[in-house]
Amino acid sequence: MLLPAQIIQKKRDGNALTEEEIRFFINGFTRGELPDYQMSALAMAICFQGMNFDETMWLTRAMIQSGKIVVWRKTSAQVPKGPRALKAGDSGTHAPGHSATSFYADKHSTGGIGDKTSLIIAPLVAACGVKVPMISGRGLGPTGGTLDKLESISGFNVNLPLDEFQRITDNVGACMIGQTAEIAPADKKLYALRDVTATVSCLSLIVGSIMCKKLAENVDGLVLDVKWGSGAFMRTRESSAELARAMVEVGKRYGKKVCALQTDMNQPLGQMIGNALEVRECIEIMTSNAGVSTANQTKGAGTAATPSDLVEVTLALAAEMLLMSGVAKNVADARQMLHKKLASGEALRKFAEMIRAQGGDAKVCEDVTRLPAAKHTRPIAAPKSGFVQSIECDQIGYAVIALGGGRKVSTDKIDLGAGFEQPKKIGDPVKAGEALMVMHYNDATRAVEAERMVQQAYRIGDGPVARLPLIVQKIE
Amino acid sequence: MLLPAQIIQKKRDGNALTEEEIRFFINGFTRGELPDYQMSALAMAICFQGMNFDETMWLTRAMIQSGKIVVWRKTSAQVPKGPRALKAGDSGTHAPGHSATSFYADKHSTGGIGDKTSLIIAPLVAACGVKVPMISGRGLGPTGGTLDKLESISGFNVNLPLDEFQRITDNVGACMIGQTAEIAPADKKLYALRDVTATVSCLSLIVGSIMCKKLAENVDGLVLDVKWGSGAFMRTRESSAELARAMVEVGKRYGKKVCALQTDMNQPLGQMIGNALEVRECIEIMTSNAGVSTANQTKGAGTAATPSDLVEVTLALAAEMLLMSGVAKNVADARQMLHKKLASGEALRKFAEMIRAQGGDAKVCEDVTRLPAAKHTRPIAAPKSGFVQSIECDQIGYAVIALGGGRKVSTDKIDLGAGFEQPKKIGDPVKAGEALMVMHYNDATRAVEAERMVQQAYRIGDGPVARLPLIVQKIE
Repeated sequence: MLLPAQIIQKKRDGNALTEEEIRFFINGFTRGELPDYQMSALAMAICFQGMNFDETMWLTRAMIQSGKIVVWRKTSAQVPKGPRALKAGDSGTHAPGHSATSFYADKHSTGGIGDKTSLIIAPLVAACGVKVPMISGRGLGPTGGTLDKLESISGFNVNLPLDEFQRITDNVGACMIGQTAEIAPADKKLYALRDVTATVSCLSLIVGSIMCKKLAENVDGLVLDVKWGSGAFMRTRESSAELARAMVEVGKRYGKKVCALQTDMNQPLGQMIGNALEVRECIEIMTSNAGVSTANQTKGAGTAATPSDLVEVTLALAAEMLLMSGVAKNVADARQMLHKKLASGEALRKFAEMIRAQGGDAKVCEDVTRLPAAKHTRPIAAPKSGFVQSIECDQIGYAVIALGGGRKVSTDKIDLGAGFEQPKKIGDPVKAGEALMVMHYNDATRAVEAERMVQQAYRIGDGPVARLPLIVQKIE
Repeated sequence: MLLPAQIIQKKRDGNALTEEEIRFFINGFTRGELPDYQMSALAMAICFQGMNFDETMWLTRAMIQSGKIVVWRKTSAQVPKGPRALKAGDSGTHAPGHSATSFYADKHSTGGIGDKTSLIIAPLVAACGVKVPMISGRGLGPTGGTLDKLESISGFNVNLPLDEFQRITDNVGACMIGQTAEIAPADKKLYALRDVTATVSCLSLIVGSIMCKKLAENVDGLVLDVKWGSGAFMRTRESSAELARAMVEVGKRYGKKVCALQTDMNQPLGQMIGNALEVRECIEIMTSNAGVSTANQTKGAGTAATPSDLVEVTLALAAEMLLMSGVAKNVADARQMLHKKLASGEALRKFAEMIRAQGGDAKVCEDVTRLPAAKHTRPIAAPKSGFVQSIECDQIGYAVIALGGGRKVSTDKIDLGAGFEQPKKIGDPVKAGEALMVMHYNDATRAVEAERMVQQAYRIGDGPVARLPLIVQKIE
């Protein structure tokens, strides 16, 4: 057996690690037997030298096996199928009485600004008969977090134990919680370390971190929303596509139905940015069916600047979940079914049901004024006339944080009502003095800084500019 | 001020750090305010992205300033001159009464197998009137350590406080101790971390680590023995020359007289390998003047396989120290003076005087049987006939460790008598069954492993092979 320093050196020198070496490191680190400073040095070496596909698989497996693996009631799925069988002792709460009627599917996004599709997808897809268990995250860097958004709803409890999570998913059809201590504890510890050692944006580590949780969650199908651009962790199309391919491949090796949509994150998604504002936007979409195109749009057909960009991405992801589950036979059927569940109000009723099951104030679904709201609003003026050429989208996320709508350090309390609405999008014409966005704020001093950040994030130029494709491609 | 993670990311992405950023990291780490896992991640990023010359200077300065700077009595030298003046509060024990009569010089080797030149150089150069304060190290990886060798001498105390070190240097002319807590504590802490995170072999970090100690030691002149080859940390001539150039440049910027000799470490230096054996070899050379060539050899003239390779490297390094100090006018004068001090027994008497001053048994100088000796010796047979083509010299070092003559972990107690003598060198003809070396051992089981390692370290082939130059070049 090699010493930890020799394993680090092996990776530093560009060699592939063995499964035993990776497991030794992950297990030792998780149990506290291997110090953080060796784990962080290895993580940095991996950032430079990468991992091959086998290493990425082994890393993912070691992190899955650090915790419990969910076993679902009434599912045809078993514990994850890897290239090697997992040990029985590694699996979680077994429940008797399997049948092949339920399909469990999850959607995961690599994160963005205004990216709130989960809030619609979970109830919408559940309304179509697919079970949607979602383990989501907090805001991270400039990106918003689904859990923070859900906590805008008074009483909503995202900290449920695994058995409660399973019970609500089975009974209601959807449940949205945070990572529990039972699922992939190795990832939780490693993620915290990566966050403070500049080793977050490393492909293999990202793949391992995302996939270990989804595979331990043990859904039958997984749709990945892999974003690219100035508001995403992957800044280029190429790196984002590479990440998508790696995650899809890992998922397939575990016998899952899995695909990825590569989508645009060079500008905020939708019309609202900020926790309570985003919940409001989702409820309004589920209420009025606003923005749902009646055209049978397929992937790549939408563009980022249509008013319905949020709806388009949401429907494209949800349709993939329906296809995987066999609930729909083709994209046209899937989209028709989704439109119907939105128009009939079934999606919204399912959202209310889930909120109630998780202890939250379901009345927000009928009355969005029950959500927290900022005391003040004011437009942020465009400094000059022209067309929006590009947006430093991460700066919009940091502007939300500057307003208090996100955390600078993990102990910060969030101002849930703060944020922005109606952002100008790339290609939009603007006049000097016209609003780039409307700011919602409670603290006038913070508003000054946030306003400056938004103005600096927009590049306005003379000529019109081509709009970016909203959905770049499907990877499966 | 950037966050630590942002500084790590800056270096990870290949950008140069500022002096403030480097000082913030080194100071925070030394004081325990910045966690080890961030320091190790930064060190690994530096291994991949390197540091430019300014960054290396700033790193060195931050580490110097973490501790005291020695101020010598009767020296013309002041505190180190950097590109910016050091703060007065950073300097160490001031002593009044400067005069320009004494010159303080040190020699530093990057380490090797059988590399024992310090044990001769310190008393020999002191016998010529130059003050030689040496702060040395323990065995590291496969290389031997001067302190471990000195501790073969009964009672020898290498753990002296700074003022005692200065007093003996001034009164005797030479003193050899280990790193004290007062000198460059940042380096001590960083080195321990690098050792367990595979970040030792990184040029800028090596330069900073070596030079901060020598500059805090505050000698007037410094001769560097920068080794290259299979028994050195720098495996190639190029990387070793690059290291030498960087160290010489840092030393010059601090106003020091400094030069480097690049020397061969593809095979053990001298005839003995192992702690007490190496002390014996040095005493025998100083006793009999054995191996001292009467030819006026200059750099590049020797070859690694002459019986006097140890003496040749020793004299070349010592001559540079005499030239720097002004005690000799040219290499011919310097070598003549050195020969004389060896032949007259003055060097050996100075060694005895230093041993006595440091509490050791000075009688070893007249009677080497007072040194620890292994119970058994046996030859290690060459597995086949031919010529020695090459030696995996680090494996010879690891074979010494396997015998118990070095540490596997820092708490190991060393078998001081264990080691090897009379190694065949590159280019030597050997017959199958003839001795590659003679092994000195106490533990028969360990001897079996060490024997196998030595046999595997030698590559024996049919044809004769060119001998490597012992001294490649002088860098100044």
